[in-house]
Amino acid sequence: MSAPATTLQDIIAHAKEYGFVFPSSEIYDGLQAVYDYGQNGVELKNNLKNAWWKAMTQLNDNIVGIDAAIFMHPLTWKASGHVDGFNDPMIDNKDSKKRYRADQLLEGKAEVLTNEGKKDEAQALLNKMGQLLGAEDLEGVKNLIIEEGIVCPVSGTSNWTDVRQFNLMFSTQVGSVAEDSNTIYLRPETAQGIFVNFLNVQKSGRMKIPFGIAQIGKAFRNEIVARQFTFRMREFEQMEMQFFVRPGSEMEWYETWKENRLSFHKAIGLPTESLQYHDHEKLAHYANAAVDIEYKFPFGFREIEGIHSRTDFDLRNHQELSKKKQQYFDPEVNPETGKPFGNYIPFVVETSVGADRLFLATFCNAFTKEMVGEGDKQKERTYLKLHPALAPIKAAVLPLVKKDGLAEIAEEITNSLKPYFRAVYDDSGAIGKRYTRQDLIGTPYCIAVDYETKDDNCVTIRHRDSMEQERVPIAELKDRIGKEVAVERILEAI
Amino acid sequence: MSAPATTLQDIIAHAKEYGFVFPSSEIYDGLQAVYDYGQNGVELKNNLKNAWWKAMTQLNDNIVGIDAAIFMHPLTWKASGHVDGFNDPMIDNKDSKKRYRADQLLEGKAEVLTNEGKKDEAQALLNKMGQLLGAEDLEGVKNLIIEEGIVCPVSGTSNWTDVRQFNLMFSTQVGSVAEDSNTIYLRPETAQGIFVNFLNVQKSGRMKIPFGIAQIGKAFRNEIVARQFTFRMREFEQMEMQFFVRPGSEMEWYETWKENRLSFHKAIGLPTESLQYHDHEKLAHYANAAVDIEYKFPFGFREIEGIHSRTDFDLRNHQELSKKKQQYFDPEVNPETGKPFGNYIPFVVETSVGADRLFLATFCNAFTKEMVGEGDKQKERTYLKLHPALAPIKAAVLPLVKKDGLAEIAEEITNSLKPYFRAVYDDSGAIGKRYTRQDLIGTPYCIAVDYETKDDNCVTIRHRDSMEQERVPIAELKDRIGKEVAVERILEAI
Repeated sequence: MSAPATTLQDIIAHAKEYGFVFPSSEIYDGLQAVYDYGQNGVELKNNLKNAWWKAMTQLNDNIVGIDAAIFMHPLTWKASGHVDGFNDPMIDNKDSKKRYRADQLLEGKAEVLTNEGKKDEAQALLNKMGQLLGAEDLEGVKNLIIEEGIVCPVSGTSNWTDVRQFNLMFSTQVGSVAEDSNTIYLRPETAQGIFVNFLNVQKSGRMKIPFGIAQIGKAFRNEIVARQFTFRMREFEQMEMQFFVRPGSEMEWYETWKENRLSFHKAIGLPTESLQYHDHEKLAHYANAAVDIEYKFPFGFREIEGIHSRTDFDLRNHQELSKKKQQYFDPEVNPETGKPFGNYIPFVVETSVGADRLFLATFCNAFTKEMVGEGDKQKERTYLKLHPALAPIKAAVLPLVKKDGLAEIAEEITNSLKPYFRAVYDDSGAIGKRYTRQDLIGTPYCIAVDYETKDDNCVTIRHRDSMEQERVPIAELKDRIGKEVAVERILEAI
Repeated sequence: MSAPATTLQDIIAHAKEYGFVFPSSEIYDGLQAVYDYGQNGVELKNNLKNAWWKAMTQLNDNIVGIDAAIFMHPLTWKASGHVDGFNDPMIDNKDSKKRYRADQLLEGKAEVLTNEGKKDEAQALLNKMGQLLGAEDLEGVKNLIIEEGIVCPVSGTSNWTDVRQFNLMFSTQVGSVAEDSNTIYLRPETAQGIFVNFLNVQKSGRMKIPFGIAQIGKAFRNEIVARQFTFRMREFEQMEMQFFVRPGSEMEWYETWKENRLSFHKAIGLPTESLQYHDHEKLAHYANAAVDIEYKFPFGFREIEGIHSRTDFDLRNHQELSKKKQQYFDPEVNPETGKPFGNYIPFVVETSVGADRLFLATFCNAFTKEMVGEGDKQKERTYLKLHPALAPIKAAVLPLVKKDGLAEIAEEITNSLKPYFRAVYDDSGAIGKRYTRQDLIGTPYCIAVDYETKDDNCVTIRHRDSMEQERVPIAELKDRIGKEVAVERILEAI
């Protein structure tokens, strides 16, 4: 008998019940596509962010971080193409008043065709849609919807409005003085905060190409259809690194980072068989090569990170719009010409992780149900198999009973460990229940204090995954556990 | 001869030149009252955030963290009072079209009176303004401005519009479907993210009163007059902890946290003489006691943290508006009645740090100019006297010369230290220049590799503050430096 397969519903329920992810503003019935991280979720997410940050800025001499504001000058988004091009095509049904993404209506139709065995027809439809959208022919898109006989699932009619482009950026007004009041945007990506600071960092940090700038921060997109829990949210967090290279060398670096980033995901505990590369078939306007690293979620393989060769698209556009040169002087001698490479706008290779997606992947991967025991005594056991360096709580100290001084010893041990890693004390309920409680939030080590402890100054460490127990001197706990839960364990494995 | 006093301009210039703080979107001439943290600033700020986070959630068994979204249900801000009450009174001059904060015009007048020796008149003016604003008598405020003969500094006239309230919250539209589209706000404080999650955390974490919830995150205020560098920004970061207590015990906890928080600021290196308490004379509508911890900036003593006894104001309002009970069942026996305390809405003691202000205080405090040397050889030396656990870079490894294998040894040492703390390699320029470069960004340890290193496997550690040098075996570097730069050094000192 094996445990049933994990569904996204299992994940959502466990995340809420054990303090990992709550719906946002839940007492007001929530805010769609926005979530809050609970007391265990925030620790897991911070540990992931910390591992990524150190992997970038501590392991690499030539990568430094920045933290740019969410608010940026609005011209930034003109240069990046977001003001003009960051749109979804929307269509309304006049009878139901419901609004849809036109491309998703057509994709839905293609899926129906595929399910009916009409694969060629489906592909033809998708190709036609791609052509029309590429040519910005919105009237053509509307006609295609009507030709295909697509009706609104609510009203059942094909009484459609025109297709209009809807910009996904959130905007707000800054400044109170009428003539100074400006529309600004909540950044839809963190990358531009790096590009506009490229020369500030390069000069003040005396950086030499190739070098990278890393950043962790929030970004915002007014997604029409947000779904799959924390996978696609309106407010989300990115971990991006832009690597500035000599033009012509970008494909080499693209390959290097492609490998390095996969290695990171393995180092934090995602198994090889749950990860895959997915080359982009259609490249974004700024890219000359792009690949996703996908993780096998309960709802299928989906992107957790993108590696993109962005050329000099962004820096060049910023240079044109700002009239400020975005050039680097490369003193190295070009072996072909015998002269320095000189001034150029660097090319950029980007690695971009969705922090919330990485959290979700890590959480899904850790969620383990297995049958333990034999025969009649067999029962299901649920625990989170998190890398010890990622676990929200590293050690729980549990007195066998509260009396006879065991509680005091356990509290003393907890206090002695606290400055070094997150250790908690728990004396509530039978010890088996307390082990289970820690299993459910992924605590790798439970430390039991029993009567023998008073004689031998030893405690029993119970390991989460194997449930094996070992006797360890109290004096060794700090180093024994400290070593295993340190972020260095991840950094060494990359 | 002593070095000249530090001005805010010195601080701003040093912060930009050495990669701590850049104006936001500078290539587009910046965005007012918004700043970006550069490669050294982000590390210093992260180290401060990490120290606060661990001081809260790791040292205290009964404090846990959360990370609530910036987007919240709009009713949250109705309950908190921000929709109706988070306003500044604005007045426009009809001739110059310039807008001013009415209260600041009156405060300016009071300052003029004070400078003229008319202290009583100034105080009377401020009192009258306080009464009018308290009574929401905006017409009275306008009349007072006219009576006092206050003119617009640009037009020189007193041709004023009416006074109007201007809400400081940024708003945006979420959702694309017309009937679902909602005005939401960028949170003006992080505290409400904690209050709406109070029961989720308490239940899923089995928390028992007294307990706290800590959070670090961005907040946004459309400040009319933003100034003093990163001290008052439109986008800023808060580090807040809400401590939930039994009603009646709040003053005890208020005193406890008041002391504990001052102790934290001393532990990160702010000197006793640069810190002071400032009791609020006028309490906010939600508070029954409030104190600021102020730091002595170059522009005077200003708030870096507030400790507020917020009563049950927020939870009670959320309960009323959401119709969801925000109660805690307290099983402990009340010695006065012999029965359990039972159900109640907890009282809250809040500790609220401005992360950007703490950064600025730490940076100002670390900025040191002193005269070194004697007589003709005397010269000014500038360095950042940062706590080693806060410094952006912990150690710089410097080969005396690049040749004869010294560079290779230095690189090897750098690589061996990197997994444990931020160590960099630098071989560019004379060694004195390299020391200076590290001094200017606050690196506590420089490690010089010289010819003797090849024989004795030792290096010279040069200490930033004393400039003293000591010979240390390479094998001891990791532990010797690692111990000093660990966040535990701060945690132990609280």
